[in-house]
Amino acid sequence: MQLLKTNNIKLTIEYNGLPYSGWQSQKNEKTIQSEIEKAIFKFCGHQTVIQGAGRTDAGVHALGQCANFFIDKKYSEYQIVNGLNFHLGSEKIRIVSAQIVEEKFDSRFSAKIKTYRYQIVNRTSPSVLLSDFSLHIRPELNIDIMQDAIMKLIGKYDFSSFRARDCQAKNPIRTLEDAEIKRNNQIIHISFSAKSFLYQQIRIMAGTLIEVGLNKIKPQDIPKIIDSRNRSLAGPTAPARGLTLVKIEY
Amino acid sequence: MQLLKTNNIKLTIEYNGLPYSGWQSQKNEKTIQSEIEKAIFKFCGHQTVIQGAGRTDAGVHALGQCANFFIDKKYSEYQIVNGLNFHLGSEKIRIVSAQIVEEKFDSRFSAKIKTYRYQIVNRTSPSVLLSDFSLHIRPELNIDIMQDAIMKLIGKYDFSSFRARDCQAKNPIRTLEDAEIKRNNQIIHISFSAKSFLYQQIRIMAGTLIEVGLNKIKPQDIPKIIDSRNRSLAGPTAPARGLTLVKIEY
Repeated sequence: MQLLKTNNIKLTIEYNGLPYSGWQSQKNEKTIQSEIEKAIFKFCGHQTVIQGAGRTDAGVHALGQCANFFIDKKYSEYQIVNGLNFHLGSEKIRIVSAQIVEEKFDSRFSAKIKTYRYQIVNRTSPSVLLSDFSLHIRPELNIDIMQDAIMKLIGKYDFSSFRARDCQAKNPIRTLEDAEIKRNNQIIHISFSAKSFLYQQIRIMAGTLIEVGLNKIKPQDIPKIIDSRNRSLAGPTAPARGLTLVKIEY
Repeated sequence: MQLLKTNNIKLTIEYNGLPYSGWQSQKNEKTIQSEIEKAIFKFCGHQTVIQGAGRTDAGVHALGQCANFFIDKKYSEYQIVNGLNFHLGSEKIRIVSAQIVEEKFDSRFSAKIKTYRYQIVNRTSPSVLLSDFSLHIRPELNIDIMQDAIMKLIGKYDFSSFRARDCQAKNPIRTLEDAEIKRNNQIIHISFSAKSFLYQQIRIMAGTLIEVGLNKIKPQDIPKIIDSRNRSLAGPTAPARGLTLVKIEY
């Protein structure tokens, strides 16, 4: 079926990542992308492929993921939001808004800034209130030295030390536009903003910062780790738990 | 059994309020107070009654509830936290910290400021990520006029219009020390701070502010509602869902 590309639809999407094998469609796996594509098919009969701005890993949540797709029928933004949410039924995925955008808009490549945030519960006992939305770390993290370390990650670098070994990006250079750590009693938020990230870059940066907070890596080692372009010198990949794709800015 | 009041223990407690009939012990109901009392009994063999700083309604969460009790045995704070959490098992209640405090400390009457927060998701579709922790309101709330209205609630007043009909407090005068509304896209936080509140005062103030945001009550009506001392002039009691006892300051 040939589609007339009359309408380019941008969706803003919220999801609880726990029941899914990540964003991206994979054979025999329940993914967020495939559930939304099924809902689009039920809504308007189009077999379409949606492009997500950030391809979140299994277990990662989103408050403001974005994706776009083309349809040749005319619907109001209100009809799209309500129609897709109806067909998403009991899935832990909700379309927060829909916008008809210009044809050249691409949710992935038009993105200017993507912001992700880790939530860490830093205390003896795990949280019963935030457990699905946080990483639990028992020993006290030293926020001051994590603060020093995170500043050394901001900027344009070859982030080869901070990407998964199976990352397929040809160019390992990325610009970390902003990053910050905040502590509110026992709850720590670490956020990262960039136009794009390497595969698992956020989880490896977070894992490295946690090692800094535990005095296992020194803040002054961060530039050396970057320069080495050696994955084994950075910290471990932090678990997906506690990570949320907060927003995409265009 | 007569207890030597050697140790007054202050607990800071987190809980998910959804599975419980509120804080306070009631016959044949599962409550947070009674589950903690059971854990204390299993931990040290004391049949004790704990005093909660805020007696939260069914469904209300807490990040920083406080309670105290006396024991005649010596335990370290670490032993108390871990022992009670062990016996709380799969309950959605966690002791965040324990402190040995002076004998005259009373978690309820020594409290200087209690802070509660409502989280509202204000958009067409309910949130899948925050549903257990937020109240869903579909029509757009006008935050600017809610801001005007909330300022008129701050201060020392006879809050008779803002208490449940079965509130048993003899004195209806309370001082609302601070209150604020913040919007971050579709998520609204309303917080209230006072030394103490009348029964359901927070839920009725929130219900009234929501009516203001929906243009059903005007901000300039707030002083008239206070003056009337008439519960029926204030807004409805907002649902417990979305309300969290954030912290108690001493």
